[in-house]
Amino acid sequence: MPLITQFDCQQRDASDPLSALREAFSLPPGVIYLDGNSLGAMPKTTAARVHQVVTQEWGQGLIRSWNNAHWFSLPQRLGDKIAPLIGAAPGQVVVSDSTSINLYKVLSAALQIAKEDAPQRRQVLSERSNFPTDLYIAQSLCQQHGFELQLCEASEIDDLLNAKVAVLMLTHVNYRTGAMHDMTALTHAAHAVGALAVWDLAHSAGAVEVNLCTAQADFAVGCGYKYLNGGPGAPAFAWVNPQHVERFSQPLVGWWGHASPFAFTSDYHPAAGISRYLCGTQGILSLAALECGLDIFAQAEALGGMPALRLKSLALTDLMINLVQQRCSGLGLGLATPLAHAQRGSQVCLTRAEGAYAIISALIDRGVIGDYRAANDPTLPDILRFGMTPLYTRFDDIWNAVEHLRQILLSDEWRQAKYQQQQAVT
Amino acid sequence: MPLITQFDCQQRDASDPLSALREAFSLPPGVIYLDGNSLGAMPKTTAARVHQVVTQEWGQGLIRSWNNAHWFSLPQRLGDKIAPLIGAAPGQVVVSDSTSINLYKVLSAALQIAKEDAPQRRQVLSERSNFPTDLYIAQSLCQQHGFELQLCEASEIDDLLNAKVAVLMLTHVNYRTGAMHDMTALTHAAHAVGALAVWDLAHSAGAVEVNLCTAQADFAVGCGYKYLNGGPGAPAFAWVNPQHVERFSQPLVGWWGHASPFAFTSDYHPAAGISRYLCGTQGILSLAALECGLDIFAQAEALGGMPALRLKSLALTDLMINLVQQRCSGLGLGLATPLAHAQRGSQVCLTRAEGAYAIISALIDRGVIGDYRAANDPTLPDILRFGMTPLYTRFDDIWNAVEHLRQILLSDEWRQAKYQQQQAVT
Repeated sequence: MPLITQFDCQQRDASDPLSALREAFSLPPGVIYLDGNSLGAMPKTTAARVHQVVTQEWGQGLIRSWNNAHWFSLPQRLGDKIAPLIGAAPGQVVVSDSTSINLYKVLSAALQIAKEDAPQRRQVLSERSNFPTDLYIAQSLCQQHGFELQLCEASEIDDLLNAKVAVLMLTHVNYRTGAMHDMTALTHAAHAVGALAVWDLAHSAGAVEVNLCTAQADFAVGCGYKYLNGGPGAPAFAWVNPQHVERFSQPLVGWWGHASPFAFTSDYHPAAGISRYLCGTQGILSLAALECGLDIFAQAEALGGMPALRLKSLALTDLMINLVQQRCSGLGLGLATPLAHAQRGSQVCLTRAEGAYAIISALIDRGVIGDYRAANDPTLPDILRFGMTPLYTRFDDIWNAVEHLRQILLSDEWRQAKYQQQQAVT
Repeated sequence: MPLITQFDCQQRDASDPLSALREAFSLPPGVIYLDGNSLGAMPKTTAARVHQVVTQEWGQGLIRSWNNAHWFSLPQRLGDKIAPLIGAAPGQVVVSDSTSINLYKVLSAALQIAKEDAPQRRQVLSERSNFPTDLYIAQSLCQQHGFELQLCEASEIDDLLNAKVAVLMLTHVNYRTGAMHDMTALTHAAHAVGALAVWDLAHSAGAVEVNLCTAQADFAVGCGYKYLNGGPGAPAFAWVNPQHVERFSQPLVGWWGHASPFAFTSDYHPAAGISRYLCGTQGILSLAALECGLDIFAQAEALGGMPALRLKSLALTDLMINLVQQRCSGLGLGLATPLAHAQRGSQVCLTRAEGAYAIISALIDRGVIGDYRAANDPTLPDILRFGMTPLYTRFDDIWNAVEHLRQILLSDEWRQAKYQQQQAVT
């Protein structure tokens, strides 16, 4: 690998056909934002749109806006904008509630199907390093339905997929390491032993190519506030394979998922299709903000869409990996993210045995925003996490981020007392 | 009752010490808004506050705002602002998710307690005319936990409260009729037969006095977008009696309800107290908007707080009932709302055998916004529903609303073709 220069990085930005998409975002001056995998950046259209919803649709329209401003169809309208990003068809996705709540809905349905079709199967198989909330939800539902949650390393999944497994529940891209599963292969492997596959796309949707239909996945959920740039706590989405969607109504039954939501009948009759995965009234301000994030993907479509965004994402993560190798060698950093493209999401996770939290704090002080994740095993190093959002991250941002990191490590700047006190980091 | 004049109504506004609170809201010109029981009006501070959250806290602060803008403590901070409105203590209420989801959480906990303390009890008793989503959630949980949902009329509750009942689940103020239960008496009656009492305060919080602690209620949930004026789909709240709160963790377990939410451990350990009723990440824009609505109650506190608001609410509903009696007699209207103050919430529901939907449509065309609820039994008349929000409804508004209603009925204006086509009404 020839030495990379800052000029090379700037040249890549100059010749990047996707670079114009950054103009759709408002990013603070002096900040290099590499935490879009935790909370995406703000689209320029969001503030005006939310203001319109507050002052016009709510303030002036009041209750009439349920019909006049089409609030009632927002979950489906937004779902249809997410569908092309995850390889789903129109009418198959709804936006509602949180990722955790949606996982509860789809995993409940998966377990109900498993009970009916394969009552002897009593295991939910997942990864020990899956996002903790996903495991909590699985624990809760396993206890409720009489299943056992079996946790393993990623490398053990193939071996543990057997006739005991009812559901394989995985997060497509690991939140700590950025490692990506082969969704198609694992879904087929699950089906081959008679299990269902449930996928969490929190760190995938909008960042890597996903094709739920091609993979023949069974259930999926994902997050609105990471790579979809929907704003803090934006609502989440749910997708169910059409072959399963009408077999059961999920347990969180509310008026918005009813077949006749305005009939106010005392018996629940689930709506046709994915709308039955809705429950109660949703925050309209948060839904409206998410739509602004989703509409940027329509602009990206004209520039090559998800395949082009994925190529840029890989180029950005490759660049960071190579620059850290070339410019930070001997400074105590390791790499937690896989080198193989097929196994990598859209983030670079560096390991560091000492001072990882202080190093991230010093970076943030210099305007480079990544984040920190503690080792989930005391024998392992902590993690410095950097997410690349191909819609707005520049190659030159990566150069500058690595240069700041290098200076902080070389100068021992991170040892300053002000960086040592650890605060909660989301 | 002497004849009431419009001048009387205007005099009452002029001498009303609470009238200044209307200045806290932005209401559209030419509109008399009597649907705050469905979606409350917009506080004047909300647009600027939400704009600040979008552009500053999100746009500039980005991920740092979880700590710097105190997003993490919003559910508890808002809960503490709701607590005095419902007779709860600080630290006992959290704001999160929807009313339906929160009902799922608290009813799950109630059934778990019942199973453990009184395994022979297998009934959940509720009203047939309870809000349908509440019944759907109860059906779902009864099926899951092996309970039976027993529905009855309000007048039958006392008779049916017996040793078979595990949980009495009621909505304090009926959404269709405005009838209010005696929370203290029914809670004590439930306890007397060994059952738990779960209350939905959707049509109570902010409109009528509620004292959960004095009533010794067991669980309660409520809505943020009705009388609390939190905006469309604002998040809901949950309260649990401290004697129950740590007995179980509810089934919707997520990072925000974890004892160490940033430790990312793979095992769930519920947070102390009511925070364990949180689940996944919440829409921060919607939470911030709700806080603007709640802060108006702090202004109201200086003017007598909930007792003063309740007196005004009763004066407003009395006025409407009396004006309809005096000025619309012989026009085919009946009254569904109880006359006794102790049995009345903050709405007036008129019955009408013919054309109720068209009459509401004609009223809305004249700028008087109430709403329509179909009869839940074909032998009964439909309902015209008018909600009074003592924070902003004026006595003169009631005069004008009844005058418009009288003119529409006298002139047969409602028979015009344009009012006959029924649309979904939320």
